[in-house]
Amino acid sequence: MASEPNELPANNPGLHATPDEATKSYFMQQTMFRIKDPKSSLDFYSRVLGMSLLKRLDFPEMKFSLYFLGYEDPASAPTNPTDRTVWTFGQKATIELTHNWGTESDPEFKGYHNGNSEPRGFGHIGVTVDDTYKACERFERLGVEFVKKPDDGKMKGIAFIKDPDGYWVEIFDLKTIGSITGGAS
Amino acid sequence: MASEPNELPANNPGLHATPDEATKSYFMQQTMFRIKDPKSSLDFYSRVLGMSLLKRLDFPEMKFSLYFLGYEDPASAPTNPTDRTVWTFGQKATIELTHNWGTESDPEFKGYHNGNSEPRGFGHIGVTVDDTYKACERFERLGVEFVKKPDDGKMKGIAFIKDPDGYWVEIFDLKTIGSITGGAS
Repeated sequence: MASEPNELPANNPGLHATPDEATKSYFMQQTMFRIKDPKSSLDFYSRVLGMSLLKRLDFPEMKFSLYFLGYEDPASAPTNPTDRTVWTFGQKATIELTHNWGTESDPEFKGYHNGNSEPRGFGHIGVTVDDTYKACERFERLGVEFVKKPDDGKMKGIAFIKDPDGYWVEIFDLKTIGSITGGAS
Repeated sequence: MASEPNELPANNPGLHATPDEATKSYFMQQTMFRIKDPKSSLDFYSRVLGMSLLKRLDFPEMKFSLYFLGYEDPASAPTNPTDRTVWTFGQKATIELTHNWGTESDPEFKGYHNGNSEPRGFGHIGVTVDDTYKACERFERLGVEFVKKPDDGKMKGIAFIKDPDGYWVEIFDLKTIGSITGGAS
């Protein structure tokens, strides 16, 4: 065991260990990506991954809608639509799916880029599950497309699935992630 | 006020309102994107946005490192490196920055794609702050690059800033997001 953790500022140029007081109430609220067809994406994120639709915002003049999904219980959301927006933006770790109207039925639409081929950038979102193998057996039964099954490749016990647009979702569990990445920690 | 909220399954084809029991312990843990230079990114996410480095994982054979950052207090992390990995993967709403070694000093490296020009896909992450205007004044003082200042464009009160790789970070607050998006909710 290193006496100096990898995460110390001395080992990480650029890192400031004490957050500025001005940022103390900040939190990571959303991850936005564009989707072709809300019907497919809502099905995937709710039925397959168990998320709920926290809020939908429609912008008719600009012809797009935003779907905020996450693992909060919408039963605890306020009924007033505007209050529900504020409640949604007060939740951590949501995904925001942007639907530009018409892509779902446009034969010319070429689909979105998942960031894992050139030009690269964004990689994936990741969902912690109770048991990676059990979760992946269920995904297989549901016909989900895999990038990597848990026993493929070097990192046994970690999986990647694809959402309907081809974005990657990493799947891992807390029982095994420590030993899987043990050599790297 | 609509008597039927926008978010009802009847109004959202594909949506399943009752999460499968198998998914009940799932949570949204991470958003991964690639970075050119950890020194610049660690500076930005810690000094500017107030995140902490929760965990670093190094993979020397594959020549990359992963930096997990978020708004949790690393003082509450276990000291054992593997336990700290498990603790990190047990936190919601982290960002995972992937650094492929060498890009920071490679004159041939062209940089990463932020997803907001063709080919589009990923859009941004979003951080809830206490006060958007106050936060943006501070970002300006710190020399942060803006995609949209709060008073630019139609959506007054929402801002977008750029991280060192050009990825967009949306900035909003709970005091104003309800009225800003009121027409859409």
